[in-house]
Amino acid sequence: MKDFPLKALSFHPREECGVVGIWNVPEAAKLAYLGLYTLQHRGQESAGIVTAREGELWGHRGMGLVADVFDAETLNHLPGTRAIGHVRYSTTGDPDPENCQPLQIQYRRGGLALAHNGNIVNASSIRRELELSGAIFHTTVDSEVILHLLARDVGSFEDTLFSALSAVRGAYSMVILTPESLVAVRDPNGFRPLLLGRLKEGWVVASETCAFDLIGAVYEREVEPGEVIIFDREGLRSRRLAPASRQSLCIFELIYFSRPDSTIFEESVHEARLRLGAALARACPAEADVVISVPDSSNTAALGYAREAGLPFEQGLIRSHYIGRTFIEPDANIRDFGVRLKYNPVRAVLEGRRIVLVDDSIVRGSTSRKIVRMIRAAGAREIHMRISCPPWRYPCNYGIDTPEAEKLIAHRNDVETIRKEIDADSLGYLTVEQMLAAIPNHQFCTACFTGDYPVRFETREKKTVLGTGRRTTVARKAGGFLCL
Amino acid sequence: MKDFPLKALSFHPREECGVVGIWNVPEAAKLAYLGLYTLQHRGQESAGIVTAREGELWGHRGMGLVADVFDAETLNHLPGTRAIGHVRYSTTGDPDPENCQPLQIQYRRGGLALAHNGNIVNASSIRRELELSGAIFHTTVDSEVILHLLARDVGSFEDTLFSALSAVRGAYSMVILTPESLVAVRDPNGFRPLLLGRLKEGWVVASETCAFDLIGAVYEREVEPGEVIIFDREGLRSRRLAPASRQSLCIFELIYFSRPDSTIFEESVHEARLRLGAALARACPAEADVVISVPDSSNTAALGYAREAGLPFEQGLIRSHYIGRTFIEPDANIRDFGVRLKYNPVRAVLEGRRIVLVDDSIVRGSTSRKIVRMIRAAGAREIHMRISCPPWRYPCNYGIDTPEAEKLIAHRNDVETIRKEIDADSLGYLTVEQMLAAIPNHQFCTACFTGDYPVRFETREKKTVLGTGRRTTVARKAGGFLCL
Amino acid sequence: MKDFPLKALSFHPREECGVVGIWNVPEAAKLAYLGLYTLQHRGQESAGIVTAREGELWGHRGMGLVADVFDAETLNHLPGTRAIGHVRYSTTGDPDPENCQPLQIQYRRGGLALAHNGNIVNASSIRRELELSGAIFHTTVDSEVILHLLARDVGSFEDTLFSALSAVRGAYSMVILTPESLVAVRDPNGFRPLLLGRLKEGWVVASETCAFDLIGAVYEREVEPGEVIIFDREGLRSRRLAPASRQSLCIFELIYFSRPDSTIFEESVHEARLRLGAALARACPAEADVVISVPDSSNTAALGYAREAGLPFEQGLIRSHYIGRTFIEPDANIRDFGVRLKYNPVRAVLEGRRIVLVDDSIVRGSTSRKIVRMIRAAGAREIHMRISCPPWRYPCNYGIDTPEAEKLIAHRNDVETIRKEIDADSLGYLTVEQMLAAIPNHQFCTACFTGDYPVRFETREKKTVLGTGRRTTVARKAGGFLCL
Amino acid sequence: MKDFPLKALSFHPREECGVVGIWNVPEAAKLAYLGLYTLQHRGQESAGIVTAREGELWGHRGMGLVADVFDAETLNHLPGTRAIGHVRYSTTGDPDPENCQPLQIQYRRGGLALAHNGNIVNASSIRRELELSGAIFHTTVDSEVILHLLARDVGSFEDTLFSALSAVRGAYSMVILTPESLVAVRDPNGFRPLLLGRLKEGWVVASETCAFDLIGAVYEREVEPGEVIIFDREGLRSRRLAPASRQSLCIFELIYFSRPDSTIFEESVHEARLRLGAALARACPAEADVVISVPDSSNTAALGYAREAGLPFEQGLIRSHYIGRTFIEPDANIRDFGVRLKYNPVRAVLEGRRIVLVDDSIVRGSTSRKIVRMIRAAGAREIHMRISCPPWRYPCNYGIDTPEAEKLIAHRNDVETIRKEIDADSLGYLTVEQMLAAIPNHQFCTACFTGDYPVRFETREKKTVLGTGRRTTVARKAGGFLCL
Repeated sequence: MKDFPLKALSFHPREECGVVGIWNVPEAAKLAYLGLYTLQHRGQESAGIVTAREGELWGHRGMGLVADVFDAETLNHLPGTRAIGHVRYSTTGDPDPENCQPLQIQYRRGGLALAHNGNIVNASSIRRELELSGAIFHTTVDSEVILHLLARDVGSFEDTLFSALSAVRGAYSMVILTPESLVAVRDPNGFRPLLLGRLKEGWVVASETCAFDLIGAVYEREVEPGEVIIFDREGLRSRRLAPASRQSLCIFELIYFSRPDSTIFEESVHEARLRLGAALARACPAEADVVISVPDSSNTAALGYAREAGLPFEQGLIRSHYIGRTFIEPDANIRDFGVRLKYNPVRAVLEGRRIVLVDDSIVRGSTSRKIVRMIRAAGAREIHMRISCPPWRYPCNYGIDTPEAEKLIAHRNDVETIRKEIDADSLGYLTVEQMLAAIPNHQFCTACFTGDYPVRFETREKKTVLGTGRRTTVARKAGGFLCL
Repeated sequence: MKDFPLKALSFHPREECGVVGIWNVPEAAKLAYLGLYTLQHRGQESAGIVTAREGELWGHRGMGLVADVFDAETLNHLPGTRAIGHVRYSTTGDPDPENCQPLQIQYRRGGLALAHNGNIVNASSIRRELELSGAIFHTTVDSEVILHLLARDVGSFEDTLFSALSAVRGAYSMVILTPESLVAVRDPNGFRPLLLGRLKEGWVVASETCAFDLIGAVYEREVEPGEVIIFDREGLRSRRLAPASRQSLCIFELIYFSRPDSTIFEESVHEARLRLGAALARACPAEADVVISVPDSSNTAALGYAREAGLPFEQGLIRSHYIGRTFIEPDANIRDFGVRLKYNPVRAVLEGRRIVLVDDSIVRGSTSRKIVRMIRAAGAREIHMRISCPPWRYPCNYGIDTPEAEKLIAHRNDVETIRKEIDADSLGYLTVEQMLAAIPNHQFCTACFTGDYPVRFETREKKTVLGTGRRTTVARKAGGFLCL
Repeated sequence: MKDFPLKALSFHPREECGVVGIWNVPEAAKLAYLGLYTLQHRGQESAGIVTAREGELWGHRGMGLVADVFDAETLNHLPGTRAIGHVRYSTTGDPDPENCQPLQIQYRRGGLALAHNGNIVNASSIRRELELSGAIFHTTVDSEVILHLLARDVGSFEDTLFSALSAVRGAYSMVILTPESLVAVRDPNGFRPLLLGRLKEGWVVASETCAFDLIGAVYEREVEPGEVIIFDREGLRSRRLAPASRQSLCIFELIYFSRPDSTIFEESVHEARLRLGAALARACPAEADVVISVPDSSNTAALGYAREAGLPFEQGLIRSHYIGRTFIEPDANIRDFGVRLKYNPVRAVLEGRRIVLVDDSIVRGSTSRKIVRMIRAAGAREIHMRISCPPWRYPCNYGIDTPEAEKLIAHRNDVETIRKEIDADSLGYLTVEQMLAAIPNHQFCTACFTGDYPVRFETREKKTVLGTGRRTTVARKAGGFLCL
Repeated sequence: MKDFPLKALSFHPREECGVVGIWNVPEAAKLAYLGLYTLQHRGQESAGIVTAREGELWGHRGMGLVADVFDAETLNHLPGTRAIGHVRYSTTGDPDPENCQPLQIQYRRGGLALAHNGNIVNASSIRRELELSGAIFHTTVDSEVILHLLARDVGSFEDTLFSALSAVRGAYSMVILTPESLVAVRDPNGFRPLLLGRLKEGWVVASETCAFDLIGAVYEREVEPGEVIIFDREGLRSRRLAPASRQSLCIFELIYFSRPDSTIFEESVHEARLRLGAALARACPAEADVVISVPDSSNTAALGYAREAGLPFEQGLIRSHYIGRTFIEPDANIRDFGVRLKYNPVRAVLEGRRIVLVDDSIVRGSTSRKIVRMIRAAGAREIHMRISCPPWRYPCNYGIDTPEAEKLIAHRNDVETIRKEIDADSLGYLTVEQMLAAIPNHQFCTACFTGDYPVRFETREKKTVLGTGRRTTVARKAGGFLCL
């Protein structure tokens, strides 16, 4: 018998973080908590909130889901009308309790807290420089370098902020809280979404608009690429960082990460996925009886495919939502145990039929192979796998947790080889052009498909330097359930 | 600020139990555990497993989800190749740790354990008789009377079993474990499902076939209404209880409770729901632009409706799966907070459109009213609510957790009054005849729709006698997440 | 590396239980809780309280220390002015959550709860008879037979009670709660203590008077051997069971179990121990420099010895009070690890000196051997071990958790052999006569020293029958600390 | 009903920390864990261990007792033959999970960890300077400034270390771990103890020798005031910091903090206390019948008093060791509830007698007053309180958690006023001279008695600056038990 850690399975690439900021609304901590709850799909490893009142910052962070980390008592200890919050996976930085964000420090000007979604691609070299000048690092999180840069005196807080941001490169949608102000920043490329909303007399900033809906905030507009919005006693003001040569919004936010009920990049995620599915149906049609999806993230693309193809959509896989962090597997191994824990085929949908199976990505290929095998064992006559984006060939350096290039099945294999590997009867992807045509009017980052990285980065090997010399064990991890 | 107990919300009627039995398969406890995991939707309040080895029974029970109650250590302490397991809500009996099933006792013949899905409708009067003859009761569970009846000496164990079963009336799909044998029983009316499968050299019994899929068992057939299957050293043998005047399978198992990937009553749950949805489209058409469902349980019926009506199906509500047992609500109340925690509307689907909203039941009406209000606030132009069964007018006495008749919105109100109450533009239900026509070839219980109860029961007031004189508090309830 | 379960060490014989009863005092549950806290030394495995209000009983039980099992929430759910409570070790019955007392059932007359300190020596045969007449048993606790006897109708509750008590033999100081009354019973032999106190307008019953001190109750008198006190709406009344041929109070309560700040059997425990120590000094003098004790239970006897002998008393062993339930032992084993975790020698007291080491019992001898070895390694020149009672030769059948006779080092060995085994320079015990002379004016049970059992019992082998056919695993045992 | 937080009671001043270091012994983490367990009395709020292997440091820290924070799994994740460990109370720094020591950072040279017992009295001004040069602080612990100083490049690690130590003032017995070396440092005044022992092929450093006993290490000598011992691949070498004008060992370590089985400052704690008690008997005799102590810390001084005075010593107060972190107090308050939870009087010792009550300190006076009242209520005829040191008049700035001067009852009151306040029949303290005469041959810090602070410190108000701008809530504090 062994514990089966479900997290080990690479069902999908994982988003690293979600952030929220509240300015000038009573019960800010509770609103941040509810906002984080709606952003839980963006990070399930840790959660944290920092609030400001009367010149002081108050924080609480912990490993686990939002509902595990916070209860009435902890929220009551976070006073004030200003807050930032964070949920995360660990892309840089270990799953270490001390890596939980918002990072919260004290420095020359007093308290400072920061919640960051993205990845600073030159964090290693900045860190080395800072270390040579005597800096010490408590975490292995890339975002800690920003705090150090903010602690360097170059004049006013705002001047220091712009100086610090001019030093870092990469993806950063972030919120910064001081006793006097809240700052929302989005990098000039605009990799990660960041949205602005109004609530009562105040403001809300969040990674997705679904956070606005629960707390009754009204969507106002995007925080634009390169925009820095500062909320303080004088109100809200917007300033600009030096522009990027071109924007590079993360198209995977629309394909997979964001919730379909969110609006990001001024696009309805739901509609974008419907159009991707329809484009897929046109690009890769199949002689089939029924369209099914790998639930839940591919549902909308599958509906779009089905409608365009004139085929019925059905629920061919049932997903379990009671899935825990680990499962006990019998000694007599169960084939495809992890996949079976999560999905079960509906024989009545599959038996004797030709299936179009829509998914939104293939990472290593092993999960797809198991799903295809399971569907075939349930009686499917043919399985035509369709992916609502191009083959994923290159790792992301801008905030998505991806394996090394060699582990991406599409890195060295053509589509036919992948098809054989996953044992589908046919396999179809969108081309980059087809994908972009389905969501026009934006400049997207397509590096994971093309290898054309819009921002130069240090080699990935160097990045691991952040962790050297410090390991902290994670004991008694919060219980609760993990949605993979 | 207050804790918001989500369980208090009456989203749907709740199933009370799921059972599983394993005979002659190595690692029986682990297989029972995985089986219970797939049956988790049938009961999330407690879980338990009892195994048999060398003349002794070994048990473990606890409050919470299967993955909370069991870990590697506890499963390792449950030896042997025979097991029964149980997940439950409390229909009779309080949420008391000592009410957790399988009930496990010692009596004249040694150990005995029992896991029961259903409701013994004459438990109170049997209990009173037993008490008058000196019996003592440790739980407030109706099933405890069966144990007392089994402890009365009327000859062989098998004779006693038949004598005991002839005394009880109502719904009982159950598994009984002794050191020598496993017994699977289904009441003559056949209210609750119970299925038989093969695994390696042994047998598996479960409330739904989805339990077979995960552990690799092969579905063999139903345990038939009135059938008693005894597994012992001589193999498997089947005997019959006195037949009911007519069978009365619970049609709500097909409408709502069972998983769509299960086969019960020799029907694919998925297909039954598709047909109900199609019948609903014919019976209650609507001038509309799009069909949406209240996810996840109504998805299939909504697909059936959409296909029959020639309308597009879309995901108009996104359901959160991170929902915890309680949530902190701000002092400044959020309208429809509980419903909003669970569902969020997709504005892009709803805005400016005429919506068909398919659900599988309306209980008190309050949840439906909130959902309609939320959808309308998201921009829907018209909302045509459609229910894939008839109005629910009477409480169930055969194992479903339902409020008193007066609290069922359809008990005293006609459809138009309900429509006004929930503020839909139109409201349509299936008639009993339309529903039965969609799933022909079975004799169903329709008491919740018609008040025509197939098995005479004691007044509901008397049932609460089971609990009098004993209350046990439930402290430190297991954490974890609850799917409502 | 391995977990070192400290409970496995047989430092001392263990008392099985403490009980408390509250009648007619507001906040009865909280007073019972505080009473149990002071009786924690009598049982650290489980705790429970049942209260009565308006015809119903309300209970909460759990594994662990009193402060683990109860919190403000659970105590608030136990209403009323009447309560009984229990802490226990398991002498009969496994460490099973369902064996936690007070046992609480429902029967013909309504609710009934019982908390028992002692051991029913004919429980097995009564249980067999009850089983033959159709009774079922939910626990492996001997006390459950009393509940069954009480459920048999022989007239009024009081008549049934006397009839039931006339059937059981052995040791029972117990409290019984019904919706109408509280009953305190002490068996005719009076093995275990039970005391009566007054608090405000009501009454308190407890195993030791230390429970009275914390809650401000005033000690009134003993519940006498064979006395049954019934508290109900008519007040308090006392009745008598048939007298025993002679009383047989457990002298080990005075020697070791009870707290020195308690009065039991109308004796100050403190003074009794001082006199035992003094008698020991007269009976077994030693040429020595200093007297030390095995803390804390032997402190008083050692003080008595030192004073009588005219020798200085010092603290030669320091006892750790942070000791947890298990400890991690390095792979490179540490000699006498368990004893060292609990005791550390004070070199300054021991080095170069001739030591009198006073303890209150030697069970298997292994702990004493390790303590002697540890003290000698700390520099003691001579070690003269003195035991404040006679050699313990026979197991207790009246409520003390003792190993089988063969495992008692004094069962087959004379004092000189034991001395060699534990490697002391000399070893002295009190004789039975010397011990009794030190605490005159009582009739004590001396069975553990003499084998002269005052109440006939079934063979110990039969007793284990209670557990056959039922094992329940104990998972996630409450954390916390165990005083051994 | 309310939760009664026992920690709030000021029974005694509290030590802030214990440290341990292991060099070159297999299973270093497990040995550190056992060492910390023996030092648990020095700090019960948090515990942590960092180990080194192959150029990396591995750490685990958490809130709670040693046995709560570590289990087999976490210890197995701490590899290597070198370790440092820490238990603490918070004197500077809040009870914040992120303040748990050992502090562990990464800087220019790699990993670095530090465990500190004491108080850096110029931490605030160093911190301000560091902040002005751009440093950021993650904790509110004074020790973090040392890490920053170590990160400044002034040549070799050893040079930097000496440079850093020359900048800090105050009390610091500490251990530092790098991937290459272990450093043990004691400040030139020698406030806190630090001892060196041998174990197998390696070395152990600890705050008290009791840590050596459990793990089988042999006490070698003190780390001397101002000594820096460096363990690395070249072995052990000792260097010296600039000497203090005079040593100032903390005499309270001998009076109260350290365990009586420890040797510190080359003194047996046990013997020192016996001599203090004897001196007290000579200085403040009393016409009395019996001497009792406030257990456990005053036991030895009381024994010394009794022997010198020729009076019997008895246990007049029984201390509970099951005391939890909080207790539920009934609404009908119990007088002196907190004190009664911890101590219960032994009426047989006290009734009608003239009592000498020996304690080792009076802080605010409220606890003493309650104890005196409780003893008097138990029948004592006269109560003569004797304190085994002089009146405590000034707060400690060198590592003991003390209230502000105004809250110390002896700060503004003479002995007679205190006597009236605590309602004793007489009250006697040692004078400073009498105390010092009882423990000759050392230079002690007597600042808490005399206000003569040996090391200049910043005003206490400034110290709190360390915490400004950062508050972290502590949720779900580890359970378990607290010895007050």
